[in-house]
Amino acid sequence: MEYSAKVLAGFLNGEVEGNPDVTVNNISKIEEGEKGTLAFLANLKYTRYLYTTEASIVLINKEIKLEKEVKCTLIRVDNAYEAFASLLELQNRNKPPKVGIHNTAVVEQSAKLGKNVYLGANCYVGENVRIDEQVKIYPQVYVGDNVRIDKNTIIYPGVKIYHNCVIGKDCVIHAGTVIGSDGFGFAPKSDKNYKKIPQVGNVIIEDHVEIGANTTIDRATIGSTIIRKGVKLDNLIQVAHNVEIGENTVIAAHTGISGSVKIGKECMFGGQVGFVGHITIADGVKIGAQAGVSKSIKEPGMVVVGSPSFNLTDFKKSHIFFRKLPELNAKINSMEKDINELKGK
Amino acid sequence: MEYSAKVLAGFLNGEVEGNPDVTVNNISKIEEGEKGTLAFLANLKYTRYLYTTEASIVLINKEIKLEKEVKCTLIRVDNAYEAFASLLELQNRNKPPKVGIHNTAVVEQSAKLGKNVYLGANCYVGENVRIDEQVKIYPQVYVGDNVRIDKNTIIYPGVKIYHNCVIGKDCVIHAGTVIGSDGFGFAPKSDKNYKKIPQVGNVIIEDHVEIGANTTIDRATIGSTIIRKGVKLDNLIQVAHNVEIGENTVIAAHTGISGSVKIGKECMFGGQVGFVGHITIADGVKIGAQAGVSKSIKEPGMVVVGSPSFNLTDFKKSHIFFRKLPELNAKINSMEKDINELKGK
Amino acid sequence: MEYSAKVLAGFLNGEVEGNPDVTVNNISKIEEGEKGTLAFLANLKYTRYLYTTEASIVLINKEIKLEKEVKCTLIRVDNAYEAFASLLELQNRNKPPKVGIHNTAVVEQSAKLGKNVYLGANCYVGENVRIDEQVKIYPQVYVGDNVRIDKNTIIYPGVKIYHNCVIGKDCVIHAGTVIGSDGFGFAPKSDKNYKKIPQVGNVIIEDHVEIGANTTIDRATIGSTIIRKGVKLDNLIQVAHNVEIGENTVIAAHTGISGSVKIGKECMFGGQVGFVGHITIADGVKIGAQAGVSKSIKEPGMVVVGSPSFNLTDFKKSHIFFRKLPELNAKINSMEKDINELKGK
Repeated sequence: MEYSAKVLAGFLNGEVEGNPDVTVNNISKIEEGEKGTLAFLANLKYTRYLYTTEASIVLINKEIKLEKEVKCTLIRVDNAYEAFASLLELQNRNKPPKVGIHNTAVVEQSAKLGKNVYLGANCYVGENVRIDEQVKIYPQVYVGDNVRIDKNTIIYPGVKIYHNCVIGKDCVIHAGTVIGSDGFGFAPKSDKNYKKIPQVGNVIIEDHVEIGANTTIDRATIGSTIIRKGVKLDNLIQVAHNVEIGENTVIAAHTGISGSVKIGKECMFGGQVGFVGHITIADGVKIGAQAGVSKSIKEPGMVVVGSPSFNLTDFKKSHIFFRKLPELNAKINSMEKDINELKGK
Repeated sequence: MEYSAKVLAGFLNGEVEGNPDVTVNNISKIEEGEKGTLAFLANLKYTRYLYTTEASIVLINKEIKLEKEVKCTLIRVDNAYEAFASLLELQNRNKPPKVGIHNTAVVEQSAKLGKNVYLGANCYVGENVRIDEQVKIYPQVYVGDNVRIDKNTIIYPGVKIYHNCVIGKDCVIHAGTVIGSDGFGFAPKSDKNYKKIPQVGNVIIEDHVEIGANTTIDRATIGSTIIRKGVKLDNLIQVAHNVEIGENTVIAAHTGISGSVKIGKECMFGGQVGFVGHITIADGVKIGAQAGVSKSIKEPGMVVVGSPSFNLTDFKKSHIFFRKLPELNAKINSMEKDINELKGK
Repeated sequence: MEYSAKVLAGFLNGEVEGNPDVTVNNISKIEEGEKGTLAFLANLKYTRYLYTTEASIVLINKEIKLEKEVKCTLIRVDNAYEAFASLLELQNRNKPPKVGIHNTAVVEQSAKLGKNVYLGANCYVGENVRIDEQVKIYPQVYVGDNVRIDKNTIIYPGVKIYHNCVIGKDCVIHAGTVIGSDGFGFAPKSDKNYKKIPQVGNVIIEDHVEIGANTTIDRATIGSTIIRKGVKLDNLIQVAHNVEIGENTVIAAHTGISGSVKIGKECMFGGQVGFVGHITIADGVKIGAQAGVSKSIKEPGMVVVGSPSFNLTDFKKSHIFFRKLPELNAKINSMEKDINELKGK
């Protein structure tokens, strides 16, 4: 299908700058753009490609000022990244949806499946499970006893959901992720062995949550591990028992959250961040990649980095001098010599 | 079912403090306790809730001294956490156990399954496998050729156990964990390519080991990667080829152990710790989260942190001054000025 | 089977030093060598065992000079590690290969399978998939629509390959690995929610790539995430959308690579390394374990460590003084006292 800049601008509620009749039939990255394709500029690191791209149309934000002429037609919108997402969604919507219960799926008799559910090959659905309408479950997924999955949620291949867990609506859970495995709880005994603490709680995932591949979310010892509305978790993240993650918080890959940590809403954490157990993180906190958070952060919107972590501005200053330590040491030695000479005066 | 404080104290060999006839029919967390429930106090960070909880009964350690009056009935025991675990176990025991070989499980003819084995839907059990009595294997598990699994072990959905590996009795292995994948061994060739070193060893997991979700344990190049009796591994841990982990060692999530590392018994490691290959860690060593261990630790019971790691006391001192580096630098500059003035005298 | 030193030296194109008629029928590690076995010396940390091992034959590099007499027969070769690999391969080749399509595997009608493909129990192969000759796919693997897998590749149990991805020939992919999950892309909206950016690209894995267990490789937003020829990835690695990893680069476990990072060829990265997004790493760069790489590295062959990372030599110097900071501080205080006394003169 071919679309003109004029038609696309209409759909996106944007403004055309350049030839409104130029058409595209595919998408491309701005740095690799080809004639007949549409690209977008969201990350300003790529601004220089605006002037060299071969893409026929580029989506950009309204406020961007051009430094020189461009060859392409621009469509200016409020949020180029979001507008681009809308176009991709449109493209995706043309795919025939997966439907039906595959004959190799095993569904216990007491389970209830809503309208238009897709259940792929070799899935297992346990006792008393309730899966609501339009849910799509790809092959080889395990849904334990008493699990509830609300409507429109997509579960990719090989996800394992233990008994009693609850998944909201419009969620996306990627392949290999494990939800509801036992929390890591052992009571030390006098003979150096450990006694396992049974983990009798569950995991609750609210609506509009997306979880990446091979992430693990442990069930609570008592009560629930809770992932609030709109949270986005990347791949290979560890969420321990009784953790709570607030609304719309976004967490990058390999981050590990220890038991009973309470995280506020609208936080952003880089990859490989670690949290000690039983601490609280305020709303809107930003944490740099690889930080080690060893105590509660009470100030909303604080930005911390480092291991152990502290605020970004101070960390940067300290790190500059960390790099200069050999130099600093030489200076101290030279000053010491001066002092000794002065004392000998 | 309802239990009185008197009955529970009898079962737990504890002492009642307060009304012995008060009853509970459920459990709760001490900070969220409700009337008619039993809670426990193990982590002293939560001591303040002892005086405010609505829980009817609280398990606490014998030695804890009250600072003021409590509303609840106390049951004092030697180890509140362990006592609580015993109660949860009692509760768990009432669940009907999973049993039987599901008709969609694929079992090769030469495999031998003991009495009362549970083998879930779509499992695969290879040639010459031996699975002993009371073992429970959830759906979608892969058990490679010649694997042996000793009695009472529980394997959760989607675990993959490669050929020739050996699992002890009373183990628990959580969903998505991989045991026996090839060690990461490649010989550099002159043309910049690598030649794969076939990994012909196996993994041996001894008795009473618990392994979290999506953890990976590589098979040995030659011989065995060994996880000793009573070891507890959290989620998403990497154990490389030919590693040996000593009895009752406990390791938190995301820790990575390089090839041929030998770890002593009764160690405790935080999350995201890394070890270089071919080193030895003494018994009882404690390692802080995110530490990078770059050489052997020979002193039993040593406590190290940092990357590269050294002992905790020294690290803390150094880190205090790391944070003060800008201040220290200012002081040095001011002293330098003083010296120059003095020299000019 | 028994082999003499003479025969093995012939096969390996090596030179015998000692009794050429001694025979072995098994392999062992040099530090645990037993009579009748063959060991090898590749890591020089183990050189001392050369003089004490009970192994009958030891493979060593031509250039190694003996410091004293050895009991074993030596076979000297150009590359002992590679020679040892060749022997293991020989041993492996005697195993009967897995073949055939298991009757529980689900293969969509439009999929095409080449000659001698092995497809294990409960695998799923989607629409328009093409799997070439000699490919081995173990049980419980998911191969999404339109995937292509080139000849001789081995896919271990439970791997999940999303639609449209492309896998080269002679690759090995270990259990639980996920290829083609959605990149982590969300556009912030004004109401604090996020809009998902559909990820319409794919993953391309070229020939001779090996990928460990439970690793995740996200599909590109547009275009492809690319793993070039000969790359070796360890377990639990995260490769984000639109990343490109150059030929023969080797990466250890738990490393996380953020979106759109371009990595050169013949690099070597330790475990738990992290990269921020949209940076470029030159050819032959070496990065120490746990490093945090926050900007592009343009110098080929550079060696960096630390978080944030800089060059190894400088890091080592800085870290020495980091450990000495309390001492340095004491010295500064004492100097300050001296200066004040001098000023008072």
